[in-house]
Amino acid sequence: MTTEDAVAAAAATEEAVSTTTASEAAVDAVTRQAVDSLSATADPRLRDLLTALVRHLHAFARETRLTQTEWEQAVGFLTATGQACTDTRQEFILLSDVLGLSMLVETLHGHSAPGTTESTVLGPFHLTQSPDRELGDIIDLVGDGEPCVVSGRVRTADGTPLPGAVVDVWQADAHGFYDVQRPDAQPPGNGRGLFTTDAEGAFWFRTCVPSPYPIPTDGPVGTLLKASGRHPYRPAHIHFIATADGHAPVTTHIFVAGGAHLDSDAVFAVKDSLVKDFTPTDDPSLAREFGVPNPFRHARFDLVLERE
Amino acid sequence: MTTEDAVAAAAATEEAVSTTTASEAAVDAVTRQAVDSLSATADPRLRDLLTALVRHLHAFARETRLTQTEWEQAVGFLTATGQACTDTRQEFILLSDVLGLSMLVETLHGHSAPGTTESTVLGPFHLTQSPDRELGDIIDLVGDGEPCVVSGRVRTADGTPLPGAVVDVWQADAHGFYDVQRPDAQPPGNGRGLFTTDAEGAFWFRTCVPSPYPIPTDGPVGTLLKASGRHPYRPAHIHFIATADGHAPVTTHIFVAGGAHLDSDAVFAVKDSLVKDFTPTDDPSLAREFGVPNPFRHARFDLVLERE
Repeated sequence: MTTEDAVAAAAATEEAVSTTTASEAAVDAVTRQAVDSLSATADPRLRDLLTALVRHLHAFARETRLTQTEWEQAVGFLTATGQACTDTRQEFILLSDVLGLSMLVETLHGHSAPGTTESTVLGPFHLTQSPDRELGDIIDLVGDGEPCVVSGRVRTADGTPLPGAVVDVWQADAHGFYDVQRPDAQPPGNGRGLFTTDAEGAFWFRTCVPSPYPIPTDGPVGTLLKASGRHPYRPAHIHFIATADGHAPVTTHIFVAGGAHLDSDAVFAVKDSLVKDFTPTDDPSLAREFGVPNPFRHARFDLVLERE
Repeated sequence: MTTEDAVAAAAATEEAVSTTTASEAAVDAVTRQAVDSLSATADPRLRDLLTALVRHLHAFARETRLTQTEWEQAVGFLTATGQACTDTRQEFILLSDVLGLSMLVETLHGHSAPGTTESTVLGPFHLTQSPDRELGDIIDLVGDGEPCVVSGRVRTADGTPLPGAVVDVWQADAHGFYDVQRPDAQPPGNGRGLFTTDAEGAFWFRTCVPSPYPIPTDGPVGTLLKASGRHPYRPAHIHFIATADGHAPVTTHIFVAGGAHLDSDAVFAVKDSLVKDFTPTDDPSLAREFGVPNPFRHARFDLVLERE
């Protein structure tokens, strides 16, 4: 028997005889020692976080009676997840996303002042600095998608416009990929832009209608989705971060109304208030004014911030 | 009613029931969606594990009101942990060890039949196949430590010897390092051996007395220990896995009685029954018989397995 076989056999056998197990007292003692070991943590918030982490992690293992083999699989999964991360891919954010943790954290802290724009997850593709752009610029540098105008204002709930607000935009192309995923097919900064609102708080830009797309499935998170019988698709959306002096920033998306997967987003990010009409528009003179082919789609919505 | 009106009305309703932070209902909804998404998992055990994981992970984030910044730090920490793993280093096992999870899983499934050897954690250094050795072989190939003989029998609780049992041994050297940590200072397989018990179930080998050592602190786990005010030391020990046909294998250590850190092992692996005397022995004829310099230390103990 090789050492690896012995380890595997050890694990298998342990499972088989796990009815003859250690006393609750011995198990309690391990949790107590681990919690006590954190008592000298200098930062009180870190102490609370680590203590809660140990309690919940141990509660998970106790409730499920996690086996040695399952623990080894979990270690292997987490290791592979870390090693799948690169400068342009963040598999741990993706894992957090598909487990609903990202959306939970966002929801715990999201601003919900009446009439303000709801927040949703940042997602794993806000990795690069968006290029500075002028209002009206085209962010779809490839140009093979359905033409689209996005326009609106950054304002407060009482209608006060916010001039000089910064609107950071990023989206997948018409084929469902971000620039960082397809550096051979898209120039850097494709689908991205950093806009500053004008004197009326207005922003607008030209782009293509985004597509639904699968989150990357060639890594550990894809394996997890497949094992749990879940599809990897996100409904079509455009990401925004809006910031203005003296106001709480908002990180959000707008979703294309009527699109696929709105009720089963792989990362649970859809909120009804963020689903917007991308109105089909057949108006040659308006198209000329916007500098887009006719017909085109037009998404109009405001980003409404809360005063700090 | 237009879609935007409907959305505004829906948002207004939601706002009416919320305070300055998201309502409990909105937070509950995220957890429910994430749990529901797992309902099609084909393997029932995997479904239970993933569901429990999501519930406990969300409970942790809710209880601590985990912030976006803390979530980002956690993502960064886990990514660095995965990327610190190599063929000879397993930082996620180390993380599991210092959080007490490894010892908890071991304790949940450890054998507790009266009179049998207690188990403890595998640890992160059982990465390489131990070399086959003959009884009595020297496993300390460097030879700069305090000479030591380890001897005993593999047997059952009623004293029946187990001939042909396999005893896998690994230990740090006199300086507190495993072979894989110091490939320039130790030959591969140093401190390791795979022994087979003789007709009386006996095993013995020559080595050096192991030293207490710090677990590796130059990675994310070291940062965690430092932030929580914990020392990184493990009390001196030798690892064993004993396997015999028809018996439950045991993965364990023996610890050097009287050594430092027995009450504050960084990975919580000490059990009283595993602390053994490494008896100082001044007996030239016995030393000659064992083939070690005089004086030497002698650890004698049995590995006691449970019948399956």
